[in-house]
Amino acid sequence: MSETILEKTEGRISYHDSVEAMIGRIREDGMSNSFDRWTEQEKIRCKFCLQGLTCQQCAQGPCRISEKTGQDKGVCGIGPDAMAMRKLLLQNIMGAGTYSHHAYEAFRTLKATGEGKTPFKITDVNKLKWMCEKLGLNTNQDTNQMAIQLADLLNAQMNIGVEEPNLMVEAFAPKKRKKVWKDLHIYPAGALHEEQNCVASCLTNVDGDYVSLALKALRLGLSTIYNAQIGLEMTQDILFGTPKPHEVNVDLGIMDPDYVNIVFNGHQPWPGVATIQKAKMAEVQERAKAAGAKGLRIVGSIETGQELVQRFPVDDVFVGLMGNWLTIEPLLATGTVDVLAMDENCSPPAIDMYAEQYQITLVAVSTIIGLPGLQHKIPYHPAETDAMADQLIELGIENFKKRKGKITPQVPKIIQKAIAGFSTEAVLEALGGKLDPLVDVIAAGKIKGVVALVSCSTIRNGPQDWNTVNLAKELIKKDILVVSAGCGNHALEVAGLCNMDAVKLAGSGLGEICGALKIPPVLSFGTCTDTGRISMLVTALADHLDVDVPQLPIAVTAPEWMEQKATIDGVFAVAYGAYTHLSPTPFVTGAPQLVKLLTQDVEGLTGGKVALGDDPVEVANNIEAHIIAKRKGLGLSNNQAAK
Amino acid sequence: MSETILEKTEGRISYHDSVEAMIGRIREDGMSNSFDRWTEQEKIRCKFCLQGLTCQQCAQGPCRISEKTGQDKGVCGIGPDAMAMRKLLLQNIMGAGTYSHHAYEAFRTLKATGEGKTPFKITDVNKLKWMCEKLGLNTNQDTNQMAIQLADLLNAQMNIGVEEPNLMVEAFAPKKRKKVWKDLHIYPAGALHEEQNCVASCLTNVDGDYVSLALKALRLGLSTIYNAQIGLEMTQDILFGTPKPHEVNVDLGIMDPDYVNIVFNGHQPWPGVATIQKAKMAEVQERAKAAGAKGLRIVGSIETGQELVQRFPVDDVFVGLMGNWLTIEPLLATGTVDVLAMDENCSPPAIDMYAEQYQITLVAVSTIIGLPGLQHKIPYHPAETDAMADQLIELGIENFKKRKGKITPQVPKIIQKAIAGFSTEAVLEALGGKLDPLVDVIAAGKIKGVVALVSCSTIRNGPQDWNTVNLAKELIKKDILVVSAGCGNHALEVAGLCNMDAVKLAGSGLGEICGALKIPPVLSFGTCTDTGRISMLVTALADHLDVDVPQLPIAVTAPEWMEQKATIDGVFAVAYGAYTHLSPTPFVTGAPQLVKLLTQDVEGLTGGKVALGDDPVEVANNIEAHIIAKRKGLGLSNNQAAK
Repeated sequence: MSETILEKTEGRISYHDSVEAMIGRIREDGMSNSFDRWTEQEKIRCKFCLQGLTCQQCAQGPCRISEKTGQDKGVCGIGPDAMAMRKLLLQNIMGAGTYSHHAYEAFRTLKATGEGKTPFKITDVNKLKWMCEKLGLNTNQDTNQMAIQLADLLNAQMNIGVEEPNLMVEAFAPKKRKKVWKDLHIYPAGALHEEQNCVASCLTNVDGDYVSLALKALRLGLSTIYNAQIGLEMTQDILFGTPKPHEVNVDLGIMDPDYVNIVFNGHQPWPGVATIQKAKMAEVQERAKAAGAKGLRIVGSIETGQELVQRFPVDDVFVGLMGNWLTIEPLLATGTVDVLAMDENCSPPAIDMYAEQYQITLVAVSTIIGLPGLQHKIPYHPAETDAMADQLIELGIENFKKRKGKITPQVPKIIQKAIAGFSTEAVLEALGGKLDPLVDVIAAGKIKGVVALVSCSTIRNGPQDWNTVNLAKELIKKDILVVSAGCGNHALEVAGLCNMDAVKLAGSGLGEICGALKIPPVLSFGTCTDTGRISMLVTALADHLDVDVPQLPIAVTAPEWMEQKATIDGVFAVAYGAYTHLSPTPFVTGAPQLVKLLTQDVEGLTGGKVALGDDPVEVANNIEAHIIAKRKGLGLSNNQAAK
Repeated sequence: MSETILEKTEGRISYHDSVEAMIGRIREDGMSNSFDRWTEQEKIRCKFCLQGLTCQQCAQGPCRISEKTGQDKGVCGIGPDAMAMRKLLLQNIMGAGTYSHHAYEAFRTLKATGEGKTPFKITDVNKLKWMCEKLGLNTNQDTNQMAIQLADLLNAQMNIGVEEPNLMVEAFAPKKRKKVWKDLHIYPAGALHEEQNCVASCLTNVDGDYVSLALKALRLGLSTIYNAQIGLEMTQDILFGTPKPHEVNVDLGIMDPDYVNIVFNGHQPWPGVATIQKAKMAEVQERAKAAGAKGLRIVGSIETGQELVQRFPVDDVFVGLMGNWLTIEPLLATGTVDVLAMDENCSPPAIDMYAEQYQITLVAVSTIIGLPGLQHKIPYHPAETDAMADQLIELGIENFKKRKGKITPQVPKIIQKAIAGFSTEAVLEALGGKLDPLVDVIAAGKIKGVVALVSCSTIRNGPQDWNTVNLAKELIKKDILVVSAGCGNHALEVAGLCNMDAVKLAGSGLGEICGALKIPPVLSFGTCTDTGRISMLVTALADHLDVDVPQLPIAVTAPEWMEQKATIDGVFAVAYGAYTHLSPTPFVTGAPQLVKLLTQDVEGLTGGKVALGDDPVEVANNIEAHIIAKRKGLGLSNNQAAK
């Protein structure tokens, strides 16, 4: 990494001082942890796997490709490019499947809410009407009936085959993209149909062509974002309100050991929202106090936390967001958690020893979650959300009684401020209801371009969030506005880049605009699931200017992608027409034709492409060069930009 | 392997002399092939992968488990048992997804046929009515309307979530099993829903518990067989007729180089049936003759071939079945193939060099198929089947003109007879319309029990089909009736075990029954997709006797499983309550708790379990011991059996 911008990383495991503070306790207590397991695994990594040149999927394997020693194909006959691409497609399918699972839960929650079976209500009626209008549903009817119809339609659209119209793509895709996708045969059917088609293609002896597999990935990416993600995020807006910017607290300092602390981890807001509602009742607080606590609090963890903070104010009951997934083990080690309620990824599998050591009750609140030592499994059913909240509160209070006095808490005294809750609607509101002011400041070069940072968090590129934070700093310094989502977003929130103090780190042009609009230089757009939400802003910009996405001075970066949802977000971005930076490098380097396709040739097809690189300064320079080239293409001056 | 029963395997690559004959040409011509690639891969196999102790799915990997050197978990924290089971579940998902893809094509073909848009018609109206009755549809209406309604219902059932009744499971599962599955929480929703739930569970940091993952696999297996497989097989019966036993020709000797030969490979019958219908027109034969051929022929390859031979007579236009998937490269090397039309697995990825060397036109007739050097992609759409058949015939005739004179054919002169086309209905018909005669001969010990052999073909256990053929010989010698499906079935058909000559290889009890009923000792029940069809026979037996499946003297074996459809068939069998022998051993041996669960503990849950072993004599002895124990449980004498 460039010496110029990076603080000394030696000996550090994280960018965040709070996590640094906790690793000491974790190690002293002899706890296995991601950071040290990483070091252990570094000793025995497989070089073939790192290059994408292994396959374990059939009984004739495991196979490896080694052209040097003469094994240029697997037993079935598959070559290096298809072998690596098939594995990547399988990752994409996992990501798509998980977003689809979330969508399934969202749509049935919306339906059950319309039917009066949940503790929720239709909060954003305007958004409900707007969605119904976009999808051709009658808006001249009872709100709850409308919600039921919308839920049924969204669910049905997840399942459509190739012969039915994809209403979500029609409603939400950029105008000029649809023909491109049709011409490439990547205009998608429903997400479940595409998942099935892709997973069938991954079977041994079905699709052995890397180009065909890559096109399937692009198509899957489109259906995932339009059918699953945008559908579910709009549903959550309808249920809980469209995010609006407001200041929240983040980092581990939000934990107070004297309270019953119920932590919601994962990506889905249902039990968290229901429990916040319940926890505000005096009766619940009284019960916690009767157990010797100062009260009962709800804590947001990773994306579930983000879903909550972007829609609900932080107060004495809901205290904020602890950070991203690599902070989970450190959070548990603070000795302050009573219940960890897990609904989706990332719920790490080896936290049973933390539960034992620090007296924590582990609860799965979804059918998909499982881990050794799980004490309670409460599968989510919309009609039983209220009972689930009661149960979680009860478990929290019971755990507090055991934890109190037994576990010595250790909380890093660090609380950071972040402005969470940006959305297309919020940006438009800040701009006075129209996009022209944004177009004007981009045209004037005060904002050179926009980068969507959608990422996980990983130790592969150095300490946790080091790459992410430094890349974001570089970008805003260059007058590039960053909109962020995912665990990468929490990295930036915790690092202090999402508050007004960060304006001083921005270039003068961006700084001026931030000051005028009272926005930070990094706009927290939510979770990885909000990739679709970010695309809505870019789509609005493209359609407003009547240009296609690849013409815009924008880019996407995942500076610390880790898991499979990131890969499907990444292939979506490429299909969408975006320059898409990925770090670390996916396991494809042994597949030369595939690398060429993803990093070069695909640009001739979709206008998007994959860019690689692990040095934040270099990556920022490359992104800037791309943005400047696109500005030129649109006839925009780069004078201010070149300053 | 036991010396006693096995002919000398040294130097052989296959049980079949036809394949042995072709490997010489393949090697002389310098063609890459599965057999030699196997030998090459043997040199560089990864020991970690063989044990299930590797993971490549996220960017923090690749990880390996090596307790010896201290790496007892992946970076995320996953342990050996969950790591191995998650990989197995992913294989299961691929299998389920591919069967589901087949089901999707079947249901939309049925619907389009009802709408008059395909070249097909409703052939088995009684079966259509029977299915509609079982699923609660009105049978007092126009046949085509009924077909459309059934297709819509079957398709909708694939997609149902956890809140809707699973009509296929209700209609087709053994009476006493349903409660077992409900108690274990493995009573399934629709296959697509279960696939999505499973694939979301496989994401990094979602399900790290091997028991939870294994239960999901069982549940997925049930939905795959009831919703996808039985649905699609009954649909194919409705469209093309329920299979009835009749003699057909198999092995490579069916190829005649002087004809235009169009080969249908994969698992789906649509374009094959349409092209057989077309090829019987004098006009088509005349066109082939005008091109210098003796005529135009249709050849069945692997499961697509089996779908065809079990429903259509072999004649001078449709000439039979060539064998199983490992025979594809040898088939292509005969220099007699004009078109290889591929619809699903197994379509090996490295046959482009065969196409070039032996002048073959490679055509994908499904969206899922892809391979390097593919000359034509004609995605299947029911309404365009007729045009597809025309196109394939045209491509065949054009290819013949190029092949004729240029390629020297080499065809092993071996044609075997096999009786194909068994089904529950056919067995009942042979028994005079009721199950009692079968029950009687089982009770009398003349037939000791029944084994379903559902398998692929692999070189892992020795030459192609060696294990499969020898195990079947051992079983029938012990008076155990074999019902077979999949590539393992073609192994037995080509090896001569599915014709009346094989009766002499059976024990005296089984031999007597075979003689009386005029059936061979191995009943060809079709393709791997007919796993569901076989279960229908066993279910009929269980319900007839009012016992549960685990009480029956039956077993399942996959003596040469190779790919992922076999794994989902296998887990279905375990959930169904069957003793399920698998060879080769799945990649789970590094996961001791998982091995214990699959081979022992699961029996306490479902009554089924996995049995391992690669020696056919030993495996047959174990299966016999299991059957004898079950006979005892039912109070049946083992005197005849022990003889």
